[in-house]
Amino acid sequence: MSAIVTVYAVFGSQEEAERIGATVIGERLAACVNILAPCRSIYRWQGAIESAEEIPALFKTSAAGAEALVARIADLHSYDTPAITVWPIAHALDSYSDWVEAATGE
Amino acid sequence: MSAIVTVYAVFGSQEEAERIGATVIGERLAACVNILAPCRSIYRWQGAIESAEEIPALFKTSAAGAEALVARIADLHSYDTPAITVWPIAHALDSYSDWVEAATGE
Amino acid sequence: MSAIVTVYAVFGSQEEAERIGATVIGERLAACVNILAPCRSIYRWQGAIESAEEIPALFKTSAAGAEALVARIADLHSYDTPAITVWPIAHALDSYSDWVEAATGE
Repeated sequence: MSAIVTVYAVFGSQEEAERIGATVIGERLAACVNILAPCRSIYRWQGAIESAEEIPALFKTSAAGAEALVARIADLHSYDTPAITVWPIAHALDSYSDWVEAATGE
Repeated sequence: MSAIVTVYAVFGSQEEAERIGATVIGERLAACVNILAPCRSIYRWQGAIESAEEIPALFKTSAAGAEALVARIADLHSYDTPAITVWPIAHALDSYSDWVEAATGE
Repeated sequence: MSAIVTVYAVFGSQEEAERIGATVIGERLAACVNILAPCRSIYRWQGAIESAEEIPALFKTSAAGAEALVARIADLHSYDTPAITVWPIAHALDSYSDWVEAATGE
């Protein structure tokens, strides 16, 4: 496996996604984030099937820093139970992986 | 690895993605789906390079329920060979993982 | 794990994403690509926090062919350090996995 990972998170608005994105990159918890176009989410909530527009985003960070990034996003997020998951990366372009590691951590 | 996974599937239309999404969530095969904005797909089909607009979607379910979700999406899908793949999750926010497991299965 | 993988790459423009997508599919390095809607990227570059519109894309290929695909995308890409990562697939619909393998390689 690669030394870097993708962290997928879903936000309630573009503003929240950009604010939290800039914060965790400023704090060197993530090297970058790709905030995707709005998505249509369908989900089960308190027994009913609900639907809402949300903003999905892909953060890149080191595998070692992933849990701290997940905790910080959750801390800043407006939801009580935000969707935040860490996806493993099998292999990455070496120069990109080096860049992600250099842009995060100490 | 986490006890939950992402299932990535690509649909022929927004209507199909939303119909199948609501069906599998109603049947407790998935906890939620993020139906992304339309994508431009390029692919090799019967020897030629083709292009079409499609709708990508990310379902979240338990690792134990993933194969049943894949089979049900394929069953409902309009394509003979739909793109349906299961992506492992290395780690998820505990409260989110618990929610996905509670919203799926028995 | 499945015999196929997803390769995630981010491009500077729709034109670049489609050109490189068609090229690597023509060269049988990838079976298909889903070029997602434009995303908003935030990233750390030479000490400053920058933001730009980019085009994310998901390629599907065989696990055995992934490194050659990563190298070819990097070769064709306009960036010095493009974001190109290989995501493992735990399980795929058998017919789809067979199709990806048949559309790539020799």
